[in-house]
Amino acid sequence: MSLAIISPGRNPKVWIDALTFHEPEIDIQVYPDIDRPEDVKMALLWQHPPGYLSTLPNLKLISSLGAGVDHILSDSSIPEALPIVRIVDEKLTWSMTNYVVMGVLNFHRQITRYQADQQRKVWDMSKPEIPVKVGVMGVGALGGDVLDKLSYMGFPVFGFGFSEKRDFRYPYFPKDELKDFLAEINVLVCLLPLTPDTENILNLELFKKCKPGTFLINVARGKHLVEEDLIPALDQGYLSGALLDVYRTEPLPASHPFWDEKRVQLTPHIASVTNPQAASPQIIENFRRLKANLPLLNVVNRPKGY
Amino acid sequence: MSLAIISPGRNPKVWIDALTFHEPEIDIQVYPDIDRPEDVKMALLWQHPPGYLSTLPNLKLISSLGAGVDHILSDSSIPEALPIVRIVDEKLTWSMTNYVVMGVLNFHRQITRYQADQQRKVWDMSKPEIPVKVGVMGVGALGGDVLDKLSYMGFPVFGFGFSEKRDFRYPYFPKDELKDFLAEINVLVCLLPLTPDTENILNLELFKKCKPGTFLINVARGKHLVEEDLIPALDQGYLSGALLDVYRTEPLPASHPFWDEKRVQLTPHIASVTNPQAASPQIIENFRRLKANLPLLNVVNRPKGY
Repeated sequence: MSLAIISPGRNPKVWIDALTFHEPEIDIQVYPDIDRPEDVKMALLWQHPPGYLSTLPNLKLISSLGAGVDHILSDSSIPEALPIVRIVDEKLTWSMTNYVVMGVLNFHRQITRYQADQQRKVWDMSKPEIPVKVGVMGVGALGGDVLDKLSYMGFPVFGFGFSEKRDFRYPYFPKDELKDFLAEINVLVCLLPLTPDTENILNLELFKKCKPGTFLINVARGKHLVEEDLIPALDQGYLSGALLDVYRTEPLPASHPFWDEKRVQLTPHIASVTNPQAASPQIIENFRRLKANLPLLNVVNRPKGY
Repeated sequence: MSLAIISPGRNPKVWIDALTFHEPEIDIQVYPDIDRPEDVKMALLWQHPPGYLSTLPNLKLISSLGAGVDHILSDSSIPEALPIVRIVDEKLTWSMTNYVVMGVLNFHRQITRYQADQQRKVWDMSKPEIPVKVGVMGVGALGGDVLDKLSYMGFPVFGFGFSEKRDFRYPYFPKDELKDFLAEINVLVCLLPLTPDTENILNLELFKKCKPGTFLINVARGKHLVEEDLIPALDQGYLSGALLDVYRTEPLPASHPFWDEKRVQLTPHIASVTNPQAASPQIIENFRRLKANLPLLNVVNRPKGY
């Protein structure tokens, strides 16, 4: 009974080391060198070749190597009955929150304008704190923690999502109330899962419903944002700036207009990176539960897409 | 009975408007046009001309226009018996905390290195989060709130001060244990009051006791830092960078080496600015208490210096 790592283009060594540290006897096979496909019962996936899983006749469980599973669900060849689990990692949440809070505070304090002043040796105190109300799209483990931390720091916060939620601990807007949600806020954080409902949700039509000068933070998936709509939304004043960590094509191509756009701050998909040491115990635990036929951890709801 | 505003070089209008809003009948005189010095019972000071208060024969109370009183205590001509009060403002605390948390997060996430990458169109994910332990010098209203917010966000925090404190809610080091305090941390935040004990405390001898690569945030007073020691401490690796909001001379002279130093980020004394609207009610309240001979709010302990 072996575990397959199918993560083309990434170095699997950190995962092998971490998994072996937690379960020294584990039998791991790594794509493309899977010599005994019939032994593979569980597969760890990150951007696997679509259709490849049909070569594993005894596969019983799929695990994402991260929090997202859009890269798995987009492969329509995967049988409906095959369970999918994902990584739920406090460290992932912690990193994501710190990144988003950093982005909110840098906007609130106008730090990039002070940085520009320093370069020109200008002493100008007249950049006051921008009053900030933060709206988070997607209020799961990640979005909920962002809301908790920003609320504790004293910022008004609002949630938005695709489910009805009663008694949520902050003001919450379901999908039919997107316009009301956007009317409350001036910082928009996208932490949605990528599903057919949410793909391309950050588009010019949405930006036109924002308060003028809203600041966008996208830390979810590149496909949430219609990239060609961002600079027009800035030019037309719906948005005043953006902090992006994810892109439709990664690495971001050198020819992409975002690189040169001063109003857009870029980071290279580092807001929250799955840590193999932190994630391995739950992968091992699911591998054991699979063997023992026990209920799995962090199972994905496939119709919902997360 | 009148209130004098003595704040040379600053526009007093915002203060007059705010005080009058809260107490329409108030009699305000503004330096240098104080025509009835014998009427002045209370003086609001920010960098007054030393010795000037001796021209106010009936002065009974001094109030700082901010949280700090070093600019008042440095005038040795002020009689010992004259009470001094200062502004204690939740908004001041809120702003200060947000500024410091911003500085900590920007260091933790190495954001300035990602900004430099963007300018060069470089996609490089290999700038991991720097594990951060934050030490705050000065654990009064401001420092205590910084500790609370950073602790809630999950960062280990440590306090340092000039008093013994038992049962402080975080690990606390009194002045004799400065070396042990510095050995615990890699972000050093100065929020001390400026007193003879604390002037020049941020000097090369202290930086040599820091863990290599410590990041300095000074949001207290310019005179806490021996400015000529900072670049040597960076060059010798005791510090890796600094975020400064205060300077020995403000505005910072155009010839100052900090302007061009990439490892030092500057802001022009904006971390936390007293808001006249927020501060006026407590000034008015102290003016009323003075009239009614009631105990004053936020009285400064002169031997302690804050």
